[in-house]
Amino acid sequence: MKDNHSKLDFDRFSRIGLEEAIYCEFKTGVLVNEILKQFLKKNKHCLLTRLSENKLNQIDSLIKKKIEYCSISNTAFFNFPEHSLSQDKKVAVLCAGSSDLSVAYEAIRTLSYYGKNSLNLFDIGVSGLWRLTEKLEQIQSTSVVIAIAGMDAALPTVLGGLISQPIIAVPTSVGYGVSKGGHTALNALLASCSSGITVVNIDNGYGAACAALRILKIT
Amino acid sequence: MKDNHSKLDFDRFSRIGLEEAIYCEFKTGVLVNEILKQFLKKNKHCLLTRLSENKLNQIDSLIKKKIEYCSISNTAFFNFPEHSLSQDKKVAVLCAGSSDLSVAYEAIRTLSYYGKNSLNLFDIGVSGLWRLTEKLEQIQSTSVVIAIAGMDAALPTVLGGLISQPIIAVPTSVGYGVSKGGHTALNALLASCSSGITVVNIDNGYGAACAALRILKIT
Amino acid sequence: MKDNHSKLDFDRFSRIGLEEAIYCEFKTGVLVNEILKQFLKKNKHCLLTRLSENKLNQIDSLIKKKIEYCSISNTAFFNFPEHSLSQDKKVAVLCAGSSDLSVAYEAIRTLSYYGKNSLNLFDIGVSGLWRLTEKLEQIQSTSVVIAIAGMDAALPTVLGGLISQPIIAVPTSVGYGVSKGGHTALNALLASCSSGITVVNIDNGYGAACAALRILKIT
Amino acid sequence: MKDNHSKLDFDRFSRIGLEEAIYCEFKTGVLVNEILKQFLKKNKHCLLTRLSENKLNQIDSLIKKKIEYCSISNTAFFNFPEHSLSQDKKVAVLCAGSSDLSVAYEAIRTLSYYGKNSLNLFDIGVSGLWRLTEKLEQIQSTSVVIAIAGMDAALPTVLGGLISQPIIAVPTSVGYGVSKGGHTALNALLASCSSGITVVNIDNGYGAACAALRILKIT
Amino acid sequence: MKDNHSKLDFDRFSRIGLEEAIYCEFKTGVLVNEILKQFLKKNKHCLLTRLSENKLNQIDSLIKKKIEYCSISNTAFFNFPEHSLSQDKKVAVLCAGSSDLSVAYEAIRTLSYYGKNSLNLFDIGVSGLWRLTEKLEQIQSTSVVIAIAGMDAALPTVLGGLISQPIIAVPTSVGYGVSKGGHTALNALLASCSSGITVVNIDNGYGAACAALRILKIT
Amino acid sequence: MKDNHSKLDFDRFSRIGLEEAIYCEFKTGVLVNEILKQFLKKNKHCLLTRLSENKLNQIDSLIKKKIEYCSISNTAFFNFPEHSLSQDKKVAVLCAGSSDLSVAYEAIRTLSYYGKNSLNLFDIGVSGLWRLTEKLEQIQSTSVVIAIAGMDAALPTVLGGLISQPIIAVPTSVGYGVSKGGHTALNALLASCSSGITVVNIDNGYGAACAALRILKIT
Amino acid sequence: MKDNHSKLDFDRFSRIGLEEAIYCEFKTGVLVNEILKQFLKKNKHCLLTRLSENKLNQIDSLIKKKIEYCSISNTAFFNFPEHSLSQDKKVAVLCAGSSDLSVAYEAIRTLSYYGKNSLNLFDIGVSGLWRLTEKLEQIQSTSVVIAIAGMDAALPTVLGGLISQPIIAVPTSVGYGVSKGGHTALNALLASCSSGITVVNIDNGYGAACAALRILKIT
Amino acid sequence: MKDNHSKLDFDRFSRIGLEEAIYCEFKTGVLVNEILKQFLKKNKHCLLTRLSENKLNQIDSLIKKKIEYCSISNTAFFNFPEHSLSQDKKVAVLCAGSSDLSVAYEAIRTLSYYGKNSLNLFDIGVSGLWRLTEKLEQIQSTSVVIAIAGMDAALPTVLGGLISQPIIAVPTSVGYGVSKGGHTALNALLASCSSGITVVNIDNGYGAACAALRILKIT
Repeated sequence: MKDNHSKLDFDRFSRIGLEEAIYCEFKTGVLVNEILKQFLKKNKHCLLTRLSENKLNQIDSLIKKKIEYCSISNTAFFNFPEHSLSQDKKVAVLCAGSSDLSVAYEAIRTLSYYGKNSLNLFDIGVSGLWRLTEKLEQIQSTSVVIAIAGMDAALPTVLGGLISQPIIAVPTSVGYGVSKGGHTALNALLASCSSGITVVNIDNGYGAACAALRILKIT
Repeated sequence: MKDNHSKLDFDRFSRIGLEEAIYCEFKTGVLVNEILKQFLKKNKHCLLTRLSENKLNQIDSLIKKKIEYCSISNTAFFNFPEHSLSQDKKVAVLCAGSSDLSVAYEAIRTLSYYGKNSLNLFDIGVSGLWRLTEKLEQIQSTSVVIAIAGMDAALPTVLGGLISQPIIAVPTSVGYGVSKGGHTALNALLASCSSGITVVNIDNGYGAACAALRILKIT
Repeated sequence: MKDNHSKLDFDRFSRIGLEEAIYCEFKTGVLVNEILKQFLKKNKHCLLTRLSENKLNQIDSLIKKKIEYCSISNTAFFNFPEHSLSQDKKVAVLCAGSSDLSVAYEAIRTLSYYGKNSLNLFDIGVSGLWRLTEKLEQIQSTSVVIAIAGMDAALPTVLGGLISQPIIAVPTSVGYGVSKGGHTALNALLASCSSGITVVNIDNGYGAACAALRILKIT
Repeated sequence: MKDNHSKLDFDRFSRIGLEEAIYCEFKTGVLVNEILKQFLKKNKHCLLTRLSENKLNQIDSLIKKKIEYCSISNTAFFNFPEHSLSQDKKVAVLCAGSSDLSVAYEAIRTLSYYGKNSLNLFDIGVSGLWRLTEKLEQIQSTSVVIAIAGMDAALPTVLGGLISQPIIAVPTSVGYGVSKGGHTALNALLASCSSGITVVNIDNGYGAACAALRILKIT
Repeated sequence: MKDNHSKLDFDRFSRIGLEEAIYCEFKTGVLVNEILKQFLKKNKHCLLTRLSENKLNQIDSLIKKKIEYCSISNTAFFNFPEHSLSQDKKVAVLCAGSSDLSVAYEAIRTLSYYGKNSLNLFDIGVSGLWRLTEKLEQIQSTSVVIAIAGMDAALPTVLGGLISQPIIAVPTSVGYGVSKGGHTALNALLASCSSGITVVNIDNGYGAACAALRILKIT
Repeated sequence: MKDNHSKLDFDRFSRIGLEEAIYCEFKTGVLVNEILKQFLKKNKHCLLTRLSENKLNQIDSLIKKKIEYCSISNTAFFNFPEHSLSQDKKVAVLCAGSSDLSVAYEAIRTLSYYGKNSLNLFDIGVSGLWRLTEKLEQIQSTSVVIAIAGMDAALPTVLGGLISQPIIAVPTSVGYGVSKGGHTALNALLASCSSGITVVNIDNGYGAACAALRILKIT
Repeated sequence: MKDNHSKLDFDRFSRIGLEEAIYCEFKTGVLVNEILKQFLKKNKHCLLTRLSENKLNQIDSLIKKKIEYCSISNTAFFNFPEHSLSQDKKVAVLCAGSSDLSVAYEAIRTLSYYGKNSLNLFDIGVSGLWRLTEKLEQIQSTSVVIAIAGMDAALPTVLGGLISQPIIAVPTSVGYGVSKGGHTALNALLASCSSGITVVNIDNGYGAACAALRILKIT
Repeated sequence: MKDNHSKLDFDRFSRIGLEEAIYCEFKTGVLVNEILKQFLKKNKHCLLTRLSENKLNQIDSLIKKKIEYCSISNTAFFNFPEHSLSQDKKVAVLCAGSSDLSVAYEAIRTLSYYGKNSLNLFDIGVSGLWRLTEKLEQIQSTSVVIAIAGMDAALPTVLGGLISQPIIAVPTSVGYGVSKGGHTALNALLASCSSGITVVNIDNGYGAACAALRILKIT
């Protein structure tokens, strides 16, 4: 396998303010390894998403040493310098159930890669409405809200009728039967009767964080 | 066309406590006419559903005179004796938006055909949550709740976390894009994170009322 | 992983008469463990659903000792006091084929968690109609019927024309080709030509039992 | 428009025992007219299906005079000599509801085009099971059964557990919500738990009759 | 028909900064009329969406006089005072083809209801890439971009690789075959390989504008 | 687990001429074992379908000794007496590709369980049309044709234009992309432009054989 | 409505050898009119597709005079100079049934707009195989084949096993039930067991012709 | 298992210029082995596709020795003589991301089986547009372009507006959520707003190469 199997877009940050992340789900361990070598050669860092522990272990030990891995979200920071997060929490990351944690953490990790701290509230779905309402003021103190939910995904809709900020909704593939795969959650969010909610792909915590970063850039 | 195009199940009420209703959507005016003649010959009454005004007008005037029609729900009572409704309201019929009115009225009319009064609350969807919470006590005073909603159908889910009665959810075909046809509302209801909600076919106000009647029978 | 990954709704029973159950399918063993610790700390019991044997074995032995597990339905009672079931059988749990057993047992176990005995009849699908008709009187002696079926799910429809009680139909994912995943069974039930049948999500024995419990509460 | 827009397969009967029928739904009146002229020129007759009354009226009057039209099924016999039907009824044509009449008549007309009489029983769906059982012996006296049903299409399944003949099931597009278009009926029939049922396309009364004719040919 | 068929949420603006709009597609003319009377009684104004010209003409003339209608987008301002738009154009409304105009105008009208001027660029799809690149600088001068496209919806993806602002993508139902109804455009946008694009329902120009307004509120 | 988990329909053969087969895909090894014990107790034999080798090995050795297993089709004969097949071959079993072998063998085994020999022709798909035409006469000598095909399933259509017998088409799940799962093959068969083809569920070799047996019964 | 509602890509021919065609299905008559005025102003000609007769009649008479319309294919040549077609027929346009004529003519007209004559053979579907085989040599004399078929679309597959040229397959929306809309034909073509067939969108005769023109350009 | 489980079409090359390839995904190792033996007996070579390493290892060592395997594409050349590739590169094989490599290599290997060299450019997707534009001239120097892309598959559309050659687009199953399985990529390609792009099945690199070979044959 030769190096030109990938052609990295190192220029992306200067164009759109976001770097190219390495989406590993359909890449072999061999290929991920080759890509990281290119980053190392240029002494650049990068974010990896959907890197299973299994694939992580196929990576050369010298490369692997420079990886900081999170097993909840299957994300990794490669060759990343120490850095501290912002004090303020401009983004809220909310999820409806504790089954949605991996998606929430993908968003949180992406934000933290770009230096952003976040207000993280898990398991506040609407079947126990008090869990949401008791946190409402705290949520209203942020600038952008990422709302993550599977099954019928009612959380972002209820939220949309209670707060005025931008809401980026993330459907998750949590559930069985008609919920399986997350298409019901996705469609329910697109069909939401609350106005001005936007949606990203199923389980796409990374994309939601990028959308939040685009918004923060103009504030 | 000969009479034996239909074979009426006059015995049904004695078996299951519900009469056969005449579902008119795919029957020609000629056929509906023939069926009603059979009822008249036996001096029986019946409920008709999905009878468009256009089809209503194809019916023989002698037969038509004995029809009491509701244009919001496209239902009709045929050869029905005067009767009064129950004083108490054991069933609540709720709908999320005023676009769901025709489905709500199909349920209300079916209940009233069987002599049941109902508590009717329209346009109380969760994008303005106060509309639901201010009526909560009133809703809790009934025995069975029919909750009707289109789009993302979040109303029954929120309701399911707040009340203890049986909830029969009816998805509606209101909406466009992913909501078109009501499949998103249907799936969101089946996937509801609130426990013990049951669901009927899209726009099936008639079926929801029948399910409520089955429940009332055992109370 | 910190405890606030989940926010339990201990208040739910007082609101809706049903406790929060722990749906384990998309939770890691680590997370299930954390949740059960919270229940133990408050000396509360709970019902767990979709807990695979594999995940069960990842739970701390001290916690696991307090679990009563059923391998047919993958349900568990945690920290549950001894209790006896009601004498009478107000709910019938019927299934069309012996392939539907796990769903039937999820319903039976949920009912028994709430102290309800049930009339259980397995493998009485309509391709051998006598199996249903010979039990008809027994079924008619109950208050609520949970009817479980995969493939074409004809059982609840035939039942709907023969009995007057509330029928909660549960489609199952049993089958291959067009039956795969249970969507055909689900749609056939929603489209049923028998009036007043209600439906829950595919394989949702738990939800069907909850719906039955909501009905029993008002009788 | 020139004659070579169609290339008729006059040889088909000698190959497979069935003539080419003219499926009119997507042909303009002008094109149907051209095709019938070719039949007339060769003094041949044919069967036309899905010929709307509207399109019928666009046909030249000389041609139209030779058409015998059935408005229930939208079928037509063109240039057809007088002929009488067989005495015996080897095929049963059953339908579940009177809304399925047009499909039933498409089958009946096709059989009669080939000289076959049929036992026709309408509106015998399983929500009133007695309507089927009282006719069982009569049905068992035929050689082949065409069973037509929409919605959940439970009739052929129940039938399949009661009789031993070949059953050709026809799903219909009757219904709304999940039934709309007939896909639920189709899938329920393919998934039938009764063995040895075969299925044709939605609303395809013509095809079912052809399948029955193929069977009769070998008896 | 009585007034309580609808329960208006006049409080919404104070909660979320957006008023309740009247979505007319599934409301009868009679019902729209009743709703507008309530606004008039309180001397409030409102925005109406998906109001067909046909339905517009069913409205009482006194009410209709106070309607300012746009036939491209089927939107209306009711009882709206004269007002001028902002000088600056913080939102760009782009569409890929001139077939997408009605959706673009729904967004433009919603923005203008809230006093926002917009940079409007039509027919700049990627099959003629120069049409996009020659406007790039102008687009980069805005704060938020609404990008509207049907068929394969490639425009927002290409845009996403070239600009750094928030992009709200709107799939349209323009097209035939696999494009019909807009689901391909929707899915292509959700699957976009450009990071941080968010999506709203098919043809939902109104929702995209609301999402843009939520963003502008925090800048 | 108790015996009444299954209720066997030993009476079925006398009603419909076909025995109940044991469909094993969704049954545990334990359950299959229990069922076979019941057959043994009554000294009855049965056919098992979709019995994986893995599940076969979970069966008690005493029971297993009485099983005659076919690993191509995953079918088994239990407690089956020696018997010889008919001399003549009234059924043809054809398949388009050698990837369809397991489905073909399920049909062949079912026929042989009922004592029927068959003409078996494999890998005669239409991309090499000569493979079909050179066998045409042989195929025409049978009474019923089972035609099995995956992908685009063109074989039965071409066959339908060349022979006059009943054709039972079986779509298979062979293929990838749009072919995956067999739905394209199924739909192509239902949509076939050749008249009088009937169809069974995807991969349902068993059902096709049962349908053939129903036909043979009346010849 | 202002002129800048559309931004024409007059440069396209020099880039890709194909002009921008005006796809009229989702454009109002007013908009088509505006676009044609721009062509006239520059004295350019263009091809219009999916222009219904109804929309044609909304066009200004001065503009309309310069339109040469084909009502079978709903295509139009605007401001087109007289021109003659090539003598040789390098493209074959085949369709399976006479119901596919409009799609075939869209391809033929597009080819003729670019000066290409074509070999046109209609109604040669595989249910009467001789219709195809008798023309095989003629078809083999062309360079590129456009093969159009609805329903199960078996024609291109059979063709693919018999000829060596490039085959561009066009599924059509002809059919009902599972064929409705053309998705079955589309998928059957993509799944074709004959190698090297390529496919365009449902009913896309225009696109097929463009693909053929791209091929001719390199020969 | 007997040899006649497969019937090889050795004649295919002489008919259509392409040999029969052995598609191994649904064949057992035993069956693949039998097929290769037939090739060996006739001393013929062949191409195998979708041969997993696992299945490769089930093949007899004598047969296996004659296999040249590529693990990126899971293709194999059997009994293939040494041969060199053409000097010129008439086909370009492009892919949007490095996750699409296996599909690209299936195309490249097929081309090389037929002696064709190709211009291979990987990871040039449109989210970094410069990667495509810097190679444009090189791409324009070829005769046919195979463009491979997953997710939203925007690459072929953008390409279609920039080059004049035939473009064969291959959707890949790379992605998650709505992209899963490749249907979104497929539909986006069929719906492409760039004219004259043709499409093959998802992940069908083999078919794309065959289509390119058909085109090269006529140049």
